[in-house]
Parts: sequence; structure tokens; C-alpha cells
Amino acid sequence: MLSYSYYNGEFDLTESIKIPLNDRCIYFGDGIYDAAIGCNGRIFLLDEHVQRFLSNAKKIKLGSIPTYGELTKILNDVVRQADIPEFFLYFQLSRNASGRTHSAVGANSSNLLITVSETTVRENGSPISLITEEDKRYFMCDIKTLNLLPAVIASTRAELSDCEEAVFHRGVTVTECAHSNISILKSGILFTHPQSNTILPGITRRHMLIACERLGIPYREQAFTLDELFSADEIIVTSTSKLCRTANKINGIPVGEKDAINSSKISAFLYKEYHDFQNSPTD
Amino acid sequence: MLSYSYYNGEFDLTESIKIPLNDRCIYFGDGIYDAAIGCNGRIFLLDEHVQRFLSNAKKIKLGSIPTYGELTKILNDVVRQADIPEFFLYFQLSRNASGRTHSAVGANSSNLLITVSETTVRENGSPISLITEEDKRYFMCDIKTLNLLPAVIASTRAELSDCEEAVFHRGVTVTECAHSNISILKSGILFTHPQSNTILPGITRRHMLIACERLGIPYREQAFTLDELFSADEIIVTSTSKLCRTANKINGIPVGEKDAINSSKISAFLYKEYHDFQNSPTD
Repeated sequence: MLSYSYYNGEFDLTESIKIPLNDRCIYFGDGIYDAAIGCNGRIFLLDEHVQRFLSNAKKIKLGSIPTYGELTKILNDVVRQADIPEFFLYFQLSRNASGRTHSAVGANSSNLLITVSETTVRENGSPISLITEEDKRYFMCDIKTLNLLPAVIASTRAELSDCEEAVFHRGVTVTECAHSNISILKSGILFTHPQSNTILPGITRRHMLIACERLGIPYREQAFTLDELFSADEIIVTSTSKLCRTANKINGIPVGEKDAINSSKISAFLYKEYHDFQNSPTD
Repeated sequence: MLSYSYYNGEFDLTESIKIPLNDRCIYFGDGIYDAAIGCNGRIFLLDEHVQRFLSNAKKIKLGSIPTYGELTKILNDVVRQADIPEFFLYFQLSRNASGRTHSAVGANSSNLLITVSETTVRENGSPISLITEEDKRYFMCDIKTLNLLPAVIASTRAELSDCEEAVFHRGVTVTECAHSNISILKSGILFTHPQSNTILPGITRRHMLIACERLGIPYREQAFTLDELFSADEIIVTSTSKLCRTANKINGIPVGEKDAINSSKISAFLYKEYHDFQNSPTD
């Protein structure tokens, strides 16, 4: 897969970039990231991803955070230099300091890593399969940090079970998926976990709620249980890289697929936003 | 500070080592680590640290885990090559794969990073100061993974408060410190949080319990509350790099210092183990 990376000003094929041991992402996951999709040298929903990234960088008190203008310029430059027709853009900011000490006092600089890789975003009508996984994550899930091992473990288990995603639950309460948000339709109403420190405030989740408003589908930011997930009319999984998918199987048990009209409308709305962006005239 | 590192066979000054972007420690903290102290080319409690490291590598299902014999040989070789009289040894194993996907299916190789840095381990009679911090960490604290951002944040806040450590508590229950275990003496009995997924099974903690047995100090692996911490006769903080310290201040409030006889005995036992190791004849 064609992939280019940028690290603190250096640009090269991803396989040729190396990072020094004073990058604290190596020892502690001491950094934050964001990701977006795009095409033809332009980044979809750039403003929202950059705003979230900068907000997260401040939350963990990174030093030398680039300004909004600096960061958007670098991201746009790197994307243009990579020159990949349709791409997945990943960018992270991590704390820099020599020596491995837990305390970050005095670590006033940061490292910016950007990766641009080939991708294809396409509306796929086939529903996906899920597994459930106890949510053992920390209570900082609202921040996109590099502490992602529980998501790695759950995603690995999902793939080994021939499933696309793992649904996290704290006790009986469904929170989100390993790298997506999850919502349900029940009696024509969309339910999704409220924003808190146990879920990521997903940008596609936000656009899904905008879709509901525009389409006249009532929604409630209210947690639902595993039982309610299994008995939902539809299960909707949203993420930056896949936009919107429905699920029809959890742990091998058939679920959802009882309100195709509303779920299709939401999905179509989200893909249309991306297609409109793809087809909009360039600057 | 003099520091040498080893990465997948390469040995150099730490500042000269760089790692490639297919090391998943960079994106996910997808790896485990351990740390030890040592002197004169020998590693203190090497067996226990290597056993824990290998056990943790299996828990997160890393690929290509070195055998006990391979790892101890590499660690000893690197320590001898670094030739630092008294040293802190850090070693981590992280998952290797090209491309950043959450699922680790197919990622069957691992990267071994070792760092050997100058240190001085010395019994310091001065008690330390602590702060308290709500424990927002994941429920995998029994595994020494690279997902350490909450410990970084707590340690930073401690240093900014002129304190040496942060005491984590889940609600009113004390778990451990950001990078140490914590125990209390009350009416001649030592209390320490039982092993679970909310604390690290510290090697110095284990030796502290051995000390209690040898010294005839009864102990209970039983959680204690913040109130019990504040009213304890003594507060004992144990870790690999500092061995044993007592605390006399939490959040600026005077605490402990009411059973110097027992806390001194425990501390002396732990330092004596290290001094005996230092003074033992080399092979």
C-alpha cells in the first residue's frame, strides 16, 4: 500500500521514516492523534478534525502545539506532496524529552507525525458482524490519545472471529466500539451514548445526529444496554474511515435489520456529504 | 546522563538510536516493558524481572517472544557493553507490523528495545511527599504495558506540586502510586492492596512481604481507604528504582511517622538485599 509520512519536517515513504528515542510516544503513548479521509489533495471535514486534535493536545498539556493555521497548512502541504488520489490521513502530536521519566515537567516540545496512505471510501450495503467485549479502558476515552492497547486487543479478537468491530460494554451498558461509535434505532428513535469520558466524541457521530435532525428522525443521547442492543431495530456503526455501516450479527446472533428505511436514510446522508465534498470544485 | 540503547540488534548511544514506523508502540502503545537496577555488569533480581516481562508479553499475545535464555543473554550482553557502574535497565517488547490498523492479526514479529542509563540507588532517610489523584486508568494495571498516559499526567502533577509520587484511588479505595506500590502500617500490621487488575504486582512489593515474614510483621493483602491512608501509622512506597521510602505528607497534610521501628526494619531489609547483591562476588 502506497504510504508517505512526515516527521518534524522530514517527508519520505513511510517505510523510510524513523523516529528518535526522545519521542515519548514510544514509552508512554504520551501523545494524541486524529485521522481524516480525503481525495484530490483535499481533506474532508478538516476543520473539525484539526479543532479536535488541538483541543486534545491542550487536554494532555503538550508543549509547542502548532496553531490552527500552521497545522492546516502542514497537513494540506503533506497531502499534496503525497499526491494520492483518495487517502487516509493520520496525524499525531507526541511529547518530546530526553530520558524516560514519567513526569513530563520540562518536556516543552512536541513531535508531529503525519501519514498519508491509499484508501477507498465506498458505501457498502452489506451489514457487518460484531463481537462484544468488556470495556476495560481508562476513563479518558473522550481524548484520542495513543493509549490504545485495549482497542488493539478487542479489534484483534473481532478479526479473529471474522467480525468487523468489537462493541465495548461497561457491565451491561454499551459505550462504543473499538474504533467506531455505535447507535441503535428503536421504534423510530435513534439512541447513542451521551458524550462522557467513556466514549469518543466522534465527528461522524456528530454528523449522524445532524442527519437525524435534517431527516426528522428523533434522537436521544442516552446510553443503552446490551439487551437493548440485541433487540434494536437497527444497529448503526459510525467512524471516520468507514463513515456508516449497519450490523446484522453480534457474537454470531442475528440482530437489527428491522428499520431499513431510517438506517438507509442516515447512511445515505453521511455518504452524500462525502460525495458532495469529492465532487465540489477545487479552490 | 550517560545512556546506551539497543534496538533489534543495534547498539549505540541512546540519542543515536531511531525506530521505524512499523513499531506499533508509536501508534498504540502496543507493547510491554520491565525495568531493573544493577551494578558492575550485573542485574538485580534479573530472574523475577525477566519472568514478569515474558509473562506480560504472552498476556498481550506478542509474536516472536524471545526465550528466557535468549533474553537474559541479550540483557546481560547489553549491560556489559554499556559498562555503566550503577545503572537503570529498561527493556520493552512491542508489536511490529507495517501500516496502522488496530487489529494485530498477522503482526507476528516484535521489536526489542533496551536502555541502560546511569543511576544511583541510595537509602535516603528523608520521607517523601505525595498527592492524591483519582485513578482513571484501565483495568489492565497488572500488565506493564506502554499505555501509561494517566501515570504520566499524575506524575507530572506530583512534580509540579513538589511531591515525589501520586497516590491513585478508585473512589475511596487506594490502589497504588503512579509508578510505585503503596502500603500502610496500622497497629503493627502492614496492609497493601491485593493483586488484581487495578495494581501492578510489584517485585519490590513482593520482597516487602517477604521482609514482613522474615521480620515477624503481620501483613494483609487487603485494600485500604483514603481515610485509612491519612490515619496510618506509616506509609510505605516501594518501587524497582527507589526500593523503599516512607511518606510524611499527602496533599500538604502531615501523615504517618508513628511506627518508625517497623518501617525502618522493612526499608533496611530491602536495601540490604540490594547491598548484598552489590557486594556479592562476581561470577
